[in-house]
Amino acid sequence: MTLQQEMKSLARNAREAAHKLVILSAEQKKQILSSMASAIDVTRKEIKVANDKDIQAGEKAGLSAALLDRLRLTDKRIDEMVQGIREIAELPDPVGSIIEAWDRPNGLKLERVRVPLGVIAFIYESRPNVTSDAAALCVKSSNAIILRGGKEAIYSNQIIAKVLQEGGRKAGLPEHSVQLVQTTDRDAVKELVQLEGQIDLVIPRGGESLIRAVTEQARVPVLKHFEGICHVYVHEDADLEMALKIADNAKCQRPSVCNAMETLLVSEKVADEFLPKVAELLKSRGVELRGDEKTRSIVSDVKLATEKDWRTEYLELILSIRVVDGIDQAISHINTYGSKHTDAIVSRSKVAQDKFLREVDSGTVLANASTRFADGGEFGLGAEIGISTDKLHARGPMGVKDLTTYKYLVRGSGQVRG
Amino acid sequence: MTLQQEMKSLARNAREAAHKLVILSAEQKKQILSSMASAIDVTRKEIKVANDKDIQAGEKAGLSAALLDRLRLTDKRIDEMVQGIREIAELPDPVGSIIEAWDRPNGLKLERVRVPLGVIAFIYESRPNVTSDAAALCVKSSNAIILRGGKEAIYSNQIIAKVLQEGGRKAGLPEHSVQLVQTTDRDAVKELVQLEGQIDLVIPRGGESLIRAVTEQARVPVLKHFEGICHVYVHEDADLEMALKIADNAKCQRPSVCNAMETLLVSEKVADEFLPKVAELLKSRGVELRGDEKTRSIVSDVKLATEKDWRTEYLELILSIRVVDGIDQAISHINTYGSKHTDAIVSRSKVAQDKFLREVDSGTVLANASTRFADGGEFGLGAEIGISTDKLHARGPMGVKDLTTYKYLVRGSGQVRG
Repeated sequence: MTLQQEMKSLARNAREAAHKLVILSAEQKKQILSSMASAIDVTRKEIKVANDKDIQAGEKAGLSAALLDRLRLTDKRIDEMVQGIREIAELPDPVGSIIEAWDRPNGLKLERVRVPLGVIAFIYESRPNVTSDAAALCVKSSNAIILRGGKEAIYSNQIIAKVLQEGGRKAGLPEHSVQLVQTTDRDAVKELVQLEGQIDLVIPRGGESLIRAVTEQARVPVLKHFEGICHVYVHEDADLEMALKIADNAKCQRPSVCNAMETLLVSEKVADEFLPKVAELLKSRGVELRGDEKTRSIVSDVKLATEKDWRTEYLELILSIRVVDGIDQAISHINTYGSKHTDAIVSRSKVAQDKFLREVDSGTVLANASTRFADGGEFGLGAEIGISTDKLHARGPMGVKDLTTYKYLVRGSGQVRG
Repeated sequence: MTLQQEMKSLARNAREAAHKLVILSAEQKKQILSSMASAIDVTRKEIKVANDKDIQAGEKAGLSAALLDRLRLTDKRIDEMVQGIREIAELPDPVGSIIEAWDRPNGLKLERVRVPLGVIAFIYESRPNVTSDAAALCVKSSNAIILRGGKEAIYSNQIIAKVLQEGGRKAGLPEHSVQLVQTTDRDAVKELVQLEGQIDLVIPRGGESLIRAVTEQARVPVLKHFEGICHVYVHEDADLEMALKIADNAKCQRPSVCNAMETLLVSEKVADEFLPKVAELLKSRGVELRGDEKTRSIVSDVKLATEKDWRTEYLELILSIRVVDGIDQAISHINTYGSKHTDAIVSRSKVAQDKFLREVDSGTVLANASTRFADGGEFGLGAEIGISTDKLHARGPMGVKDLTTYKYLVRGSGQVRG
């Protein structure tokens, strides 16, 4: 079988499973997910053995300590996988829910109801625990999933996928609902994302190069979880103590994630007072500061920020700072250099907050709260499959509902069009 | 200016307009649309003069009578354009409406609100009256639009776009909200649809070759209005008089449109009774019938349908017919050969109806009504920009709401993440 045939066969099997998944009841899916969770729980010894093989291969291949850590499945992480599936099981079933319903003057009864997308390909990097999250979210939303994990996690992913399938099958999960690409051949992704009409959606989750490669090769719709160049703007009337706390949290609480702040914008009316304070605090946290000329005239020991800095997602303890002449320049900076991910204003004024919330063109816009809250769990959506930086279909944190589409149901009594 | 520079300049201007459109109030947009409608109304003489130039060029180029008819702007059609804009003006404003709102235990207040997509490129074929519909739908949804019509309608489109801009501007429409690609160079489309990040959505509306070309070249998200291979399935318990009326309407009322029936599926339990009746009626309407062997054994003068027929959108008075052994085979036929557009069942049984509505994977699924109802106007959505055969973002008839996306607004009082 060629690679193309292999991928087509996965897609064909997934489509058949999808037609069966759509008729499962909410209760059946709950039992299936519960059985999948238990299966992971009781197979943890074998999972850890397989994971050890990945770790050993990774050490041999010279993976960094950080990557090896992401790869490792401890008992705590397996507990979290089990717990994650159980939580998804308890979410309300999105499928079949009526979004709108209305009658027409000619007697037709219309409903717009939520239905699964069909077949989803999920392409991700080294963390093997993502495998169970993604599979569970797809089962919950009655989608068939084709999983393609990183090659460094292949042994872990193989056993996790197998255990999920077997656990699910015992409770009635249709065969081929959860499939893993078994080969680690890089070209598999290319073949997969070109199966137009056979795969309904591709979700790549990982570094920028992965997402860019998928987007460029895809003939299938892609929902991108792209970079987060997130801003905090400190308005002239801000509570500066609050601004300090938010800037600290947004930059330092977990700098490696997409909803961490990368650029701080400060109104010139409060720059003299605020910048020395925030610089002192952030330097004490080990943050390297890069600023525009105005910032450098107020705070010492700040490198000059270049045009490139405004467009960079550092994902580490580096922050770019710009002094702006007011809210309009802040909004314009964000809409020009940002990545439409998450941006925040700190201000006492309702008028300024509302203007910022309306005019900043990003998936999540906050007033007086840390950018770190842009997250499915923090929003109360349950587990998230990613944070969309696209505008079509889903935007911002994507929960189980965002793995559905809708259709129109029309019930009549013999109406024809005149 | 190269073609690429020209398209980039259109997109840049559109983006600036989009930032201004987002702050217009519902009332302002209503006045703008009303002014646009009046402008078309009072400029009808000049519009008809320009349209005559297109008609003359078309006659010279040997366009078919059907194409020339589509191209022609009569007073009646201009009245419809004016009326169309006025109706869009009266629709509720989708922008800013709150889809969901909830509070989190930590005091954060969340809202998911509808916002414009930004910049939309609309690529369409010969009917110049589409220009005003599309522009009005975009103004209503606060999107900037770049219009690219067919070259045979260029004079008509140029004056219509100019009149819409001027009419709108008088009432406060931001400059460059409505732009028309002035060149008829074919490569303009290619340049346009590659402006990733500068255009938010491309909607191609026209024949399959246009849509395919756009899809293949696009680096920007595309919402496809593709073919409609629509089915009517006559179940074993159908009211056969109703089935006859629906089949007649679905096939013959307007065979050239995407929601007309192309394939009739009949349960073998009623084939002997129903097929002779429906064949007689449709033949009397001039419909050419193509059927499977079972159909041919019941009705004479029916060509043999090939595999290709099941996949063909005829758009004319041709119908393929297949006898199926029951509802499962009907659903499987539709999900295999259909185009996920619109399909109908005729049945007295609620169980059969519900099964069909649930398992047929199409944008619109009807029970006991003609497929011809799959239409924004018939659904009560107001004017439609197209009928999506995609599953992502929007599915089925697309109204003004479907030209929006959403964002999350989060209001706090200094919350940071722990």
